[in-house]
Amino acid sequence: MALRVAVAGASGYAGGEVLRLLLSHPEVEIGALTGGSNAGTKLGELQPHLLPLADRVLEPTTTEVLAGHDVVFLGLPHGQSAAVAEALGEDVLVVDCGADFRLKDPADWERFYGSAHAGTWLYGLPELPGHRAALKGTKRIAVPGCYPTAATLALFPAYAAGLAEPEAVIVAASGTSGAGKSVKTHLLGSEVMGSVSPYGVGGVHRHTPEMSQNLTPVAGEPVTVSFTPMLVPMSRGILATCSAKAKPGVTAGDLRAAYRAAYGDEPFVHLLPELQWPQTKSVAGSNNALVQVVLDEHAGRIIAISAIDNLVKGTAGGAVQSMNIALGLPEQLGLPVNGVAP
Amino acid sequence: MALRVAVAGASGYAGGEVLRLLLSHPEVEIGALTGGSNAGTKLGELQPHLLPLADRVLEPTTTEVLAGHDVVFLGLPHGQSAAVAEALGEDVLVVDCGADFRLKDPADWERFYGSAHAGTWLYGLPELPGHRAALKGTKRIAVPGCYPTAATLALFPAYAAGLAEPEAVIVAASGTSGAGKSVKTHLLGSEVMGSVSPYGVGGVHRHTPEMSQNLTPVAGEPVTVSFTPMLVPMSRGILATCSAKAKPGVTAGDLRAAYRAAYGDEPFVHLLPELQWPQTKSVAGSNNALVQVVLDEHAGRIIAISAIDNLVKGTAGGAVQSMNIALGLPEQLGLPVNGVAP
Amino acid sequence: MALRVAVAGASGYAGGEVLRLLLSHPEVEIGALTGGSNAGTKLGELQPHLLPLADRVLEPTTTEVLAGHDVVFLGLPHGQSAAVAEALGEDVLVVDCGADFRLKDPADWERFYGSAHAGTWLYGLPELPGHRAALKGTKRIAVPGCYPTAATLALFPAYAAGLAEPEAVIVAASGTSGAGKSVKTHLLGSEVMGSVSPYGVGGVHRHTPEMSQNLTPVAGEPVTVSFTPMLVPMSRGILATCSAKAKPGVTAGDLRAAYRAAYGDEPFVHLLPELQWPQTKSVAGSNNALVQVVLDEHAGRIIAISAIDNLVKGTAGGAVQSMNIALGLPEQLGLPVNGVAP
Amino acid sequence: MALRVAVAGASGYAGGEVLRLLLSHPEVEIGALTGGSNAGTKLGELQPHLLPLADRVLEPTTTEVLAGHDVVFLGLPHGQSAAVAEALGEDVLVVDCGADFRLKDPADWERFYGSAHAGTWLYGLPELPGHRAALKGTKRIAVPGCYPTAATLALFPAYAAGLAEPEAVIVAASGTSGAGKSVKTHLLGSEVMGSVSPYGVGGVHRHTPEMSQNLTPVAGEPVTVSFTPMLVPMSRGILATCSAKAKPGVTAGDLRAAYRAAYGDEPFVHLLPELQWPQTKSVAGSNNALVQVVLDEHAGRIIAISAIDNLVKGTAGGAVQSMNIALGLPEQLGLPVNGVAP
Repeated sequence: MALRVAVAGASGYAGGEVLRLLLSHPEVEIGALTGGSNAGTKLGELQPHLLPLADRVLEPTTTEVLAGHDVVFLGLPHGQSAAVAEALGEDVLVVDCGADFRLKDPADWERFYGSAHAGTWLYGLPELPGHRAALKGTKRIAVPGCYPTAATLALFPAYAAGLAEPEAVIVAASGTSGAGKSVKTHLLGSEVMGSVSPYGVGGVHRHTPEMSQNLTPVAGEPVTVSFTPMLVPMSRGILATCSAKAKPGVTAGDLRAAYRAAYGDEPFVHLLPELQWPQTKSVAGSNNALVQVVLDEHAGRIIAISAIDNLVKGTAGGAVQSMNIALGLPEQLGLPVNGVAP
Repeated sequence: MALRVAVAGASGYAGGEVLRLLLSHPEVEIGALTGGSNAGTKLGELQPHLLPLADRVLEPTTTEVLAGHDVVFLGLPHGQSAAVAEALGEDVLVVDCGADFRLKDPADWERFYGSAHAGTWLYGLPELPGHRAALKGTKRIAVPGCYPTAATLALFPAYAAGLAEPEAVIVAASGTSGAGKSVKTHLLGSEVMGSVSPYGVGGVHRHTPEMSQNLTPVAGEPVTVSFTPMLVPMSRGILATCSAKAKPGVTAGDLRAAYRAAYGDEPFVHLLPELQWPQTKSVAGSNNALVQVVLDEHAGRIIAISAIDNLVKGTAGGAVQSMNIALGLPEQLGLPVNGVAP
Repeated sequence: MALRVAVAGASGYAGGEVLRLLLSHPEVEIGALTGGSNAGTKLGELQPHLLPLADRVLEPTTTEVLAGHDVVFLGLPHGQSAAVAEALGEDVLVVDCGADFRLKDPADWERFYGSAHAGTWLYGLPELPGHRAALKGTKRIAVPGCYPTAATLALFPAYAAGLAEPEAVIVAASGTSGAGKSVKTHLLGSEVMGSVSPYGVGGVHRHTPEMSQNLTPVAGEPVTVSFTPMLVPMSRGILATCSAKAKPGVTAGDLRAAYRAAYGDEPFVHLLPELQWPQTKSVAGSNNALVQVVLDEHAGRIIAISAIDNLVKGTAGGAVQSMNIALGLPEQLGLPVNGVAP
Repeated sequence: MALRVAVAGASGYAGGEVLRLLLSHPEVEIGALTGGSNAGTKLGELQPHLLPLADRVLEPTTTEVLAGHDVVFLGLPHGQSAAVAEALGEDVLVVDCGADFRLKDPADWERFYGSAHAGTWLYGLPELPGHRAALKGTKRIAVPGCYPTAATLALFPAYAAGLAEPEAVIVAASGTSGAGKSVKTHLLGSEVMGSVSPYGVGGVHRHTPEMSQNLTPVAGEPVTVSFTPMLVPMSRGILATCSAKAKPGVTAGDLRAAYRAAYGDEPFVHLLPELQWPQTKSVAGSNNALVQVVLDEHAGRIIAISAIDNLVKGTAGGAVQSMNIALGLPEQLGLPVNGVAP
């Protein structure tokens, strides 16, 4: 019997991508679609690429509309997920694509988000040690941020194997869909094309504590993160260039062995052959993450690079992957493993 | 039992896209992959987005390698398909993504391609009147050109209903993948980005006679085509702006009725709601064609616009769709119906 | 002695480009810069590419602020130019980059703009027969629309020489800066990149009557225009593909002679050598227009293509060129003649 | 009297950009233009944006052709500059846009370039302490690499003021013109658009020792550089994200003071107001470098970011700037200070 799935916030980029994936998911029947200011509008006007749903009309995001589903995906503005989730009841699987329940430390939340901490849900990054098992049967999933997904997948094997010093430098280039669909002058096509724009520089980007939160437990010591994001002229994709000093005596072979051990059996994360580097187009539209790592012996640093599609593995694909695990379905169900290139 | 399918020319854009689609096709087992100068190379180096095939090694394009398959897709340079097809035998389904067998009139072929005409195969545009039925059971399919696919889908309903004068003006913008993967200075990213470049202007582009060949039978009178293509800064997609004088007395209602009749039951071609215009991103990665039509009463012209992904509906998707029909499989099998947007 | 020049609407794309050009103009001293909602903001935050003016603060667009200048450029929303111009007095040269004073026929204005006609100023396209002479000494200049500039330069020599039938089909691809700096969802980079989007299809775009107005007098008969614009993924540039049936007996030689005659002495409009087609990147940042024309003998049509930078020759450069003529300065003063490529 | 200037390698991106700048230089008369395989071709076919030179024919790169000029710019493949320069004589100013004479240490050269070291010329980065004075009157200038220009301008003030630890991490995003005009599959527009691609990762990129060479003398201790470059989907521009641990006790005020001191009087390098970050579009087509710096107190790192146009400040503009200094001309002559945006 099909799962009945609702998507709250179906007019945004995260909601639209969840729908694109669910339309190919063999166990899912798409239920209510809701929007904020777009309630009452046909989805065909807002997401013209989702042809099978073109005539569906967005409903308001209310408890009544979202009731009666097995799974509810939330693609809502910060701060709105808690109230919706509470009203849905404990037997509904709620998958939050927003940030509200990602951070464990209330002080981190308050410092970076400037509001009261709503709580912590299970963090939906199955590849992190222990996370896949924990996700089974859960009813509340916090989907990781797109940058933390990319950075964590690039670096955690090095930390898990004790190869890297606990000060990571992460510089990540993102397509503009990561900034969402709200209209701001600096996100206009005329501004974006032909330009690279850093933002949130100097330790103030909200994804910074999430990266530390992911890496610290696997490292067994506090990992400090210096994170600089930038927008580049493309719609989708993140390339995260991550580095840390190698611990004394670490060899290239140690590194390669650590990444092979971490990703040898993973369905979506792939260590590339030596000398081949990830590029974002290879993963466009797919749930894959490509990873490569090298030891710069002169500088004494481990350089690890990952490429993901920020809307798939970085948001909607990660969300569906975690949903599959939570519900006991095959983990890869409905998730594309080929990029759309060129 | 799975069909065994080979792809000749697997390192190019057409071959790569055929593979991307076949990887999701439930009835297909991917057999031999061949390349010209790339024979001996792993596909992972040439098509890094096709992860499940990363370790497959390209073989040379020989009769021996291609033997023993149920279906062979050809993505070869002009003039090479005939010899390969002949050697394969009459019981193998051969789907040619190249131009060799598209044109019926040898004079057209010789004038536009400058070589001897190889012959004519069934033209794989199922939406054209009579073509779907003819494709059933065939063993030789000529996949239409990308521009003719877009232009024909935009215009033929107007001609089929006798609404348009037989002089069509077609201006089409294409992503650069339509120009293939061979390296030429004007196709460098540095040249392409920020630029629109027309080419083949003045009636000399090779797709011109193919458009006439498609429209003339449905019009019941010879249709002259003025065709101007241009490259725009994107990888995928064609937007074809097509117009013709309206026959006397034609109304907007006539037009709409004609297009509804033509596309009401089509699985991949969609007439958009009034006032909504096709854009290429809506069909990226999918086998859809979006069409809209309007009557410009002041100028007395019918304006019809279509959007396709040149590599999917314009090449590989059209090829798989025709294969499905030829083999008696459900027409939509393995073909994406949602665009990858934004 | 330097001319004192004010720019009203300095935070927009037109105003910014006027400033970029004026900063290199040897006879100009930049005076007041005004903005609407941006009054009080430093220009460095709004136009960070104009470094020499980074510390200038935008003032409100009032008569007092704009008084005391020799020249005032207006880059204002539709309908606001008349009041400002009236208050400035008749001895100030006012150059309106907006549409308010472009159309001669009040009925055209009312039909396409939906408001009362403000009047008609001298039309600043010096290359059109008679216009250069008329501009000398004028105090009011209506800067042509960007699409009409491109289409008129592509087609008028054919009409002036009596070679083309009076029904023109114009399909033009524009960079997104032509849509301005106001924030709308469909202009977001995430939407624009990877997509071609037609709009204003079917004879409803406001630049349509302006094209007819330009071509009709040179043709000596009413010229009907079918115009379809589309946005393509780049910031700047217009490529206009224009065609019309050739009059009986017209030869390729006639065409070439007509265009040579029209543009042989023009400083900014260049007929390319045969077989070379204009591309937008060649004119990026410059005031040039590149033009090519060919006779498609099979279809019986003249195909003329032009490329301009919509913000330079299509707006700010055309404005400065007309200012130079009006003031008796050398026409090329301050205007770049080399494109910024690649 | 005008300087007579030749450009060897006029068909490439560096040579083309040198020409674009020289065409606006009031003291320059453009002499011989040479090419390798393009000798005999009109420049209008190769660099269609340089309209004033469209009819000039490229000559072969020989001593005879290059003789009789006051200045010769070299935009040649690696290893060809030495022979040409030697033949030109010591009284001709030779400005090499290539790498041959940039490195001081022959061991560095041999390790990174794999050939015998040709020698060392004066390094044309006037903003580096001591370099402006040294350039006056010189006859041989090695134009810095584009990445080293960006990285050095971002970091050297921190090192000059003793604020940064001597291990720098540099991640730089570049437009594709930095990879030159030679045709390679991975530089095709279809590959580049929609993708970010790192390359030369792990300490092997040739610009790495050049960065150390620049920073070590100002730091007064050996500076180790970890450098990762990536190509992003745009033609022009470099954004360099550079960081290093802050020395103990360093404050945000120290940093700001150091950068103000370094750049307060520089004509082309600008420290942005606090909280405003450089973006590449702001400097497109101009010789400017925009710089911003911040102290990440949590991570204990100095983050400095610079934006340049790789073809202007990063190549041709830097070359002309150094030429101006060498010849005793005003340093800013012929060099644009406004970016072409949007």
